[in-house]
Amino acid sequence: MIKGTQGYFDWNATTPLRDVARDAWLSASSNHWQNASSLYHDAGMTAQRLDAARERLADLLGCEAERIVFTSGATEANNMLHAALARRTANANRRALVSSIEHPSVREPARKAWGANRLSELPVDGDGVLDISGFERQLAAGDVGIVSVISASNESGVLQPWAKTASLCKQHGVPFHTDATQWIGKLPSEGLAACDYVTGSGHKFGGPKGTGFLIMSDPDEKLTLLHGGPQENGQRAGTENYPGIEAMVCALEEATEEAPAAAGIQAQLRDQFEETMRGIFPGLKVISAGADRLWNTSLMAMPAHSNLKWLTRLSRRGFSISTGSACSSGREGSSVIVSALGASPDELRRVVRVSAGWDTTAEAWAALAAAFAETYAELASGAMP
Amino acid sequence: MIKGTQGYFDWNATTPLRDVARDAWLSASSNHWQNASSLYHDAGMTAQRLDAARERLADLLGCEAERIVFTSGATEANNMLHAALARRTANANRRALVSSIEHPSVREPARKAWGANRLSELPVDGDGVLDISGFERQLAAGDVGIVSVISASNESGVLQPWAKTASLCKQHGVPFHTDATQWIGKLPSEGLAACDYVTGSGHKFGGPKGTGFLIMSDPDEKLTLLHGGPQENGQRAGTENYPGIEAMVCALEEATEEAPAAAGIQAQLRDQFEETMRGIFPGLKVISAGADRLWNTSLMAMPAHSNLKWLTRLSRRGFSISTGSACSSGREGSSVIVSALGASPDELRRVVRVSAGWDTTAEAWAALAAAFAETYAELASGAMP
Repeated sequence: MIKGTQGYFDWNATTPLRDVARDAWLSASSNHWQNASSLYHDAGMTAQRLDAARERLADLLGCEAERIVFTSGATEANNMLHAALARRTANANRRALVSSIEHPSVREPARKAWGANRLSELPVDGDGVLDISGFERQLAAGDVGIVSVISASNESGVLQPWAKTASLCKQHGVPFHTDATQWIGKLPSEGLAACDYVTGSGHKFGGPKGTGFLIMSDPDEKLTLLHGGPQENGQRAGTENYPGIEAMVCALEEATEEAPAAAGIQAQLRDQFEETMRGIFPGLKVISAGADRLWNTSLMAMPAHSNLKWLTRLSRRGFSISTGSACSSGREGSSVIVSALGASPDELRRVVRVSAGWDTTAEAWAALAAAFAETYAELASGAMP
Repeated sequence: MIKGTQGYFDWNATTPLRDVARDAWLSASSNHWQNASSLYHDAGMTAQRLDAARERLADLLGCEAERIVFTSGATEANNMLHAALARRTANANRRALVSSIEHPSVREPARKAWGANRLSELPVDGDGVLDISGFERQLAAGDVGIVSVISASNESGVLQPWAKTASLCKQHGVPFHTDATQWIGKLPSEGLAACDYVTGSGHKFGGPKGTGFLIMSDPDEKLTLLHGGPQENGQRAGTENYPGIEAMVCALEEATEEAPAAAGIQAQLRDQFEETMRGIFPGLKVISAGADRLWNTSLMAMPAHSNLKWLTRLSRRGFSISTGSACSSGREGSSVIVSALGASPDELRRVVRVSAGWDTTAEAWAALAAAFAETYAELASGAMP
């Protein structure tokens, strides 16, 4: 039987808490639990450490600390941004451009905030990469209030041309947002801060759940979604979750340190895995195999059997995989994205996602491929183990 | 020198994490960190435990589990509610009635959501208790879309007649909301679920920061503020923070168990403290001393010197007190509330709040009074220690 988290291949859904994050949370909860907004000495210590955590995160992301607002996660950050920009440009009759492969936490708030009339979708090409020329045509219309393009797809892992997109937006004076939830901690953050708005989530790189952030364009603009106290420079009310924030930043420091080596090793192991899988399953389709992808992700249309059958049987063997995004498992959200990647309705039912971690071993990848083979034999024989 | 948290008299701002909450968070983070929305076995275990935590919280609060939405805190819950109800009744031209002593996390979202034209303030009487007859007159106007009255004031600790208010609202068919952030965990929750909407916050009773909840009126109404995935029955998108939720529920179970004894002992110690303080400071004014109050809270206008002077010097002696709510320390928010309680502008500058915990000792209360006396002598002599 596979040990610890080595059978876990759903790192795009969430990650186990890193030891360094656990220790940081514990220490903060024991020593700096005081309210950062209070005025006595111990509370001031919490406030100072919160400031320091913001500076450290800013260093990791290459932006000014003042641009960072800590939130309860990427979903809150995405909602905050779209609600504020839709409100701000309502009179100017602006619309939002949102890629067809956005995570539901961008797609849904955009739909709610802008309404169907003020929202246009940016298609991707056959490889699952944003269609830049189509995007440029939309941008030229001159009525765009915000562009949201995910940095790396949570489903296919395909890297999007956010740097190019950001620079085109800058030329047109249009604010650009990238949901970098899957990017941050896996790939270098250089250049990300050139985007006007960037969202991130702690639990995608070994931090605790309930933590995330938004990088704003300008520290002085007001994007407030949660009104109340003056926390986060008036951008987000609510007692600061310093233990969570500290743990998130420690996790990202470690993930960032490990990322270059992981990127090299895992990409190779993932490619080997796909090669092995193609050998076992001649009819296998690896979605967006031709595109630059996250080093940990493989989205495959299996040649037969529903993804739920695969998932359930692999789970019994100690492997955790996904039928798509965990945020929308078995629901419409995932199909929307996978459809945009060119999967047929029939393929949709057979799509599985495998996403590894920073330290997934060659043995674990090989064992996963073997488990797929065993499961296939089992399904073919009609056996119910 | 005073030990551990015994010098901490700012429990209304936040509380130290209970051991039981720390252990629960650690165990959940180690064993059930998988995404509750994923479909394999281990994720199903997280989902089951999340359901069980919801049931346990429902038992503590006397409501159906389906009415509970987990949030990142009371601020998010208050924002969610007011935004949704203002939207829903915009065409019907309804207004909100909000007490003059609401926490900023109710007052501000209400102001934002309803606008000045659709928002009326409910005054309190000389004891800091909601003026019921004035409230009944407002209610009779027939154009009320929501009433928000805090259960117990975070500043004065005064208990509000929320049961009476809830029943009057029911008679008029008006939804009633109580922000029970300071009540829950300190006083019995019986009857709270008769309110249509109740908000609570984990870190006010020994749970982790970044956790809270909203009890809704009807599980099927949609109050969504954070759009995206289908988590929390579609009420709140974002990966479920199961470790935080589990820790919060464990903390509330323990706080609820300790509350009856604490209520008896602490109320007596607090009253003794106020008696001692009156002996030391003949000109001392205990605000709302005549009203039923939380057993842990004392809001006092000192006879001389600014509250910041008191706070700073008491901090040097190892005591943490507040100039008002930590959510708005030194800002306008706190003055609004204390003004509503009848403090003069001159008194405002001298108001300090002392709020104890479930296990604050008689020695700690006595030491605090002594520290006030020493500080007074020091301030009178003009000495800078």
